[in-house]
Amino acid sequence: MSTEGYLTEDASKFATYKPLIDAYNKDSLDQVRAFDPKFYESCVAAIPDAATLDSEPIDARKFLNLLSEDEQRIVNDLTISDLTSKQLAGELTAEIIARAYIKSAIVAQLATNCVMQFLIPEALSRAKELDAYRETHQKLVGPLHGVPVSLKEQMNYKGKATHASYVSYINNIPENSAVSVDILHKLGAVFHARTAQPQAIMHLDTWNNITGRTRNPCSTRLSPGGSSGGESAMVAMHGSVIGQGSDIGGSIRAPAAFANLYGIRPTTRRISLMNGLSGGKGQESIVAVQGPLARSIDELDLFMKSYINQGKPWLYDPLCVPVPWREPELPAKIKIGVLYQDNLVTPYPAITRAMKETVAKLAESPDIEIIDLTPQWYSEEEMFDINFAIESLYTCDGNKVQLGMFEPSGEPLLPLTRHFLNFGGGKELSIYDNRMLNAKRDALKTEMLQKYFSKVDFILSPTYLAPAEMPKQSLYWGYTSFWNLLDYPNVVFPTGISHSVDKDTEVPTLKANKYEKMVWLNPSDGSVKYDAQNYEGGPVALQLTGKRFCDEDVVALTKKISDILKVTRR
Amino acid sequence: MSTEGYLTEDASKFATYKPLIDAYNKDSLDQVRAFDPKFYESCVAAIPDAATLDSEPIDARKFLNLLSEDEQRIVNDLTISDLTSKQLAGELTAEIIARAYIKSAIVAQLATNCVMQFLIPEALSRAKELDAYRETHQKLVGPLHGVPVSLKEQMNYKGKATHASYVSYINNIPENSAVSVDILHKLGAVFHARTAQPQAIMHLDTWNNITGRTRNPCSTRLSPGGSSGGESAMVAMHGSVIGQGSDIGGSIRAPAAFANLYGIRPTTRRISLMNGLSGGKGQESIVAVQGPLARSIDELDLFMKSYINQGKPWLYDPLCVPVPWREPELPAKIKIGVLYQDNLVTPYPAITRAMKETVAKLAESPDIEIIDLTPQWYSEEEMFDINFAIESLYTCDGNKVQLGMFEPSGEPLLPLTRHFLNFGGGKELSIYDNRMLNAKRDALKTEMLQKYFSKVDFILSPTYLAPAEMPKQSLYWGYTSFWNLLDYPNVVFPTGISHSVDKDTEVPTLKANKYEKMVWLNPSDGSVKYDAQNYEGGPVALQLTGKRFCDEDVVALTKKISDILKVTRR
Repeated sequence: MSTEGYLTEDASKFATYKPLIDAYNKDSLDQVRAFDPKFYESCVAAIPDAATLDSEPIDARKFLNLLSEDEQRIVNDLTISDLTSKQLAGELTAEIIARAYIKSAIVAQLATNCVMQFLIPEALSRAKELDAYRETHQKLVGPLHGVPVSLKEQMNYKGKATHASYVSYINNIPENSAVSVDILHKLGAVFHARTAQPQAIMHLDTWNNITGRTRNPCSTRLSPGGSSGGESAMVAMHGSVIGQGSDIGGSIRAPAAFANLYGIRPTTRRISLMNGLSGGKGQESIVAVQGPLARSIDELDLFMKSYINQGKPWLYDPLCVPVPWREPELPAKIKIGVLYQDNLVTPYPAITRAMKETVAKLAESPDIEIIDLTPQWYSEEEMFDINFAIESLYTCDGNKVQLGMFEPSGEPLLPLTRHFLNFGGGKELSIYDNRMLNAKRDALKTEMLQKYFSKVDFILSPTYLAPAEMPKQSLYWGYTSFWNLLDYPNVVFPTGISHSVDKDTEVPTLKANKYEKMVWLNPSDGSVKYDAQNYEGGPVALQLTGKRFCDEDVVALTKKISDILKVTRR
Repeated sequence: MSTEGYLTEDASKFATYKPLIDAYNKDSLDQVRAFDPKFYESCVAAIPDAATLDSEPIDARKFLNLLSEDEQRIVNDLTISDLTSKQLAGELTAEIIARAYIKSAIVAQLATNCVMQFLIPEALSRAKELDAYRETHQKLVGPLHGVPVSLKEQMNYKGKATHASYVSYINNIPENSAVSVDILHKLGAVFHARTAQPQAIMHLDTWNNITGRTRNPCSTRLSPGGSSGGESAMVAMHGSVIGQGSDIGGSIRAPAAFANLYGIRPTTRRISLMNGLSGGKGQESIVAVQGPLARSIDELDLFMKSYINQGKPWLYDPLCVPVPWREPELPAKIKIGVLYQDNLVTPYPAITRAMKETVAKLAESPDIEIIDLTPQWYSEEEMFDINFAIESLYTCDGNKVQLGMFEPSGEPLLPLTRHFLNFGGGKELSIYDNRMLNAKRDALKTEMLQKYFSKVDFILSPTYLAPAEMPKQSLYWGYTSFWNLLDYPNVVFPTGISHSVDKDTEVPTLKANKYEKMVWLNPSDGSVKYDAQNYEGGPVALQLTGKRFCDEDVVALTKKISDILKVTRR
């Protein structure tokens, strides 16, 4: 990590933005207080202060007991199907659901600081509109009728500031919402909150100069992952049913794993990215995707099917491909290739243990054949080159777009921002170099199909090298970003296994490459920095990958695996 | 056009390649002579010499009378469906078909110089294999069983030199055929010839340093278009049933139009490009496509349906999308937006006349509503910027890839090569600039959907500013390259109208922009260079465009238009 200053940092310019940031944050706090002042006071009294939450391994989900029993039943027990069928039957209204979820979102916010912007009045108004529709027409508007969905803030929201955590954009008011927002609206979703993402949306952690740090609900001193870490905290806190995130290097999968959720990084161009703010404008060597985080694989499946088959994003976004969400096709004997580690960075002990325990359970299924891919995987040297290529592609414009977005506000650059700006040395490549890397990428994509997916149907691997990471420490993206480069779809699923302070202590034999050293050793003296105590409460969720455009099959196998592992809805 | 020399040109290096070129060409000539020496002699006697063909407006299709009556019936009258049904019924064999088409291909070659490499022994052996299969199994291997298909040479062919007209690559022998070649083989196609493309595959004309100039069958002194000009000459000469071409700026559509054929530039990623040679390695701002040229729209339809639905290219090429070739959907009242010209370059008189006459006939159909788009199209200034952006993207690596491919042989750079290398000034862009152009492209793509395709279902426009162009004169690509940038699918279809030396004489009022001047005026003195005499025999085929991934509908409307215009199989 480079420690040199960047020319964009300017404390005096940034000072002029502080009143704007304060006003922006005050709006959310005002909404929260106004919604139910008494409830708000009870939350403030029960939930520890930020300093305590930041430093203790608190399971924040327990604060949901601040809700009434009825409200708890709604936010804890009812799936999307339950919520919609009960509304259709007149047993629940969208407004009742919205009020319960606004409360859980307030708890989520106070415990994890996951919200960027509340939309409480809009949500209540929308819920009433949906209830009126149901009463008048005796039917629902769509498969997400009255379902509270949270949105990663970087998606444009018509008439609302959309800044993607760039302080310079804090007064950027888009004229149109993102296509995905419009589609989810048409399907019946209720939007009550837009969630936090890290500075530049490029950390596997969530920390920015507008709302600060977001915490992990499983253990508040841990990171919720990122860049969709506001979503993972919100969904894991039952603050929304579905969180719509996005992923260009692991930004759906790392947070889903860190918060013990299901998440999908679909094949690109199935879900619309149109009308969103990011530093990736015009970049297409590694293409970002949107996708949902959810508490159950069934809900994730229903969401994808509804979004694609009823939402038909290709009618609005010419970059989307008209590939319907089809019925899955699993072979009678499912061959799962297992990658215990990627030959570049050795995972921490909890991950290795969870991989082994999970594989052992899967191997007992008569329908599953396990094939160890690690010995035939890319070598350490090859993986080093691939990872360096990925990192170089993220910064190949010499960070000109990113720095241009930081520059107007002069905001300070956070440690993980400096970290990613330094990927590939932060060097500007020539277009020729970029083209050669694109060609290398396409060759890898083809090799993956011909060499690996000729032998196996799916690949099971870690999502990240650690259980939920400590803040500011998510340094190595390779387990997820490898699949962004190749664009094969992934689903992350909870294993039911968590980090053990007692069991997961042994440091394995380490490789000599710089990435391995970066995650295992202290840079100052080369001593081992891994400490099992740090990861208390961190869950392990693994990553399942399938062939391109076979997202449906990855979801179907995840259902089967969840059954085998006896993992139920979060 | 820059006239300065490029460092890659080196006469002494090139001299060392001449024996390789001679050996390469001798192989094809030996095959032709050996196949039927007497027939070859009769062709040489009947077909004028190259100098005559190059300078006279000869309709070369008349030389098909060198074939026997039975052979003429096969190559002139039988569609793909006829050929396959007659084989299934035992009325024809693949070998008889192959022998007839090898003869017409030899006539095509002698009259138009359209072949890069003959595959006569391979075709005969393949035909016999197909006949044996049919006898044994009493069925056909696929929908192209025994159908002679010609291949643009730049597609890899296992074990055969594949050079894409780069002299440096004349001994490049690929280990694997292109995915498309393998798919067409599986469908039953017989490959008897690989066809010529221009130097660097980047002219809308066909001229290279290996086989020289290809001629237009409609009028041999005209250009067959390019870069798939070997295919257009071959198919128009009935030398193959289908020609598989490729298009990154008009390279299927210009040749199809110049030779009065049907051609489709499908939406990208539906037909595989995998394993081909070009100077576009790793370039994805404007994505190339493959597609067929054919004598009838029904055959083009059958080819696309067979290739996609039975060939399933996504199983072999991970860049392909699994979108089946579906049944078309035409609205009851079809709204066709008409673009008489693009507001940047005024077409030559024959094109304007053909547009008007065609629109007048279409307007009589009760199912069609005509909407003039020209007044609401992009302004001259906007079109200038768009066209400059397109040209800049073709050369945005500062031509490093292209020049690197020329350099080893030192081959001379042809005038149209210098022309395209100078697109956008031939300047190397930064990755930042490239990204901003990508973003501009995506904004245009969206605007096309929202602004234009909200008002019309299809857009009818010229394919090129002239009827078949004179050699070395295809300077402006805008009518076709605009759609490569936006990636909306196009079909080119014959109108039944040809250039008239008498009618198409009037020079319209010209605009002042450099592209208009480039095509209408002599650079030396600014006098008008357009001369109606030059275009004698040039046909007019127009371009129909539909929404992305609605290729099927564009084909269906083309069928309807061909019926209205009473244009039958070529």
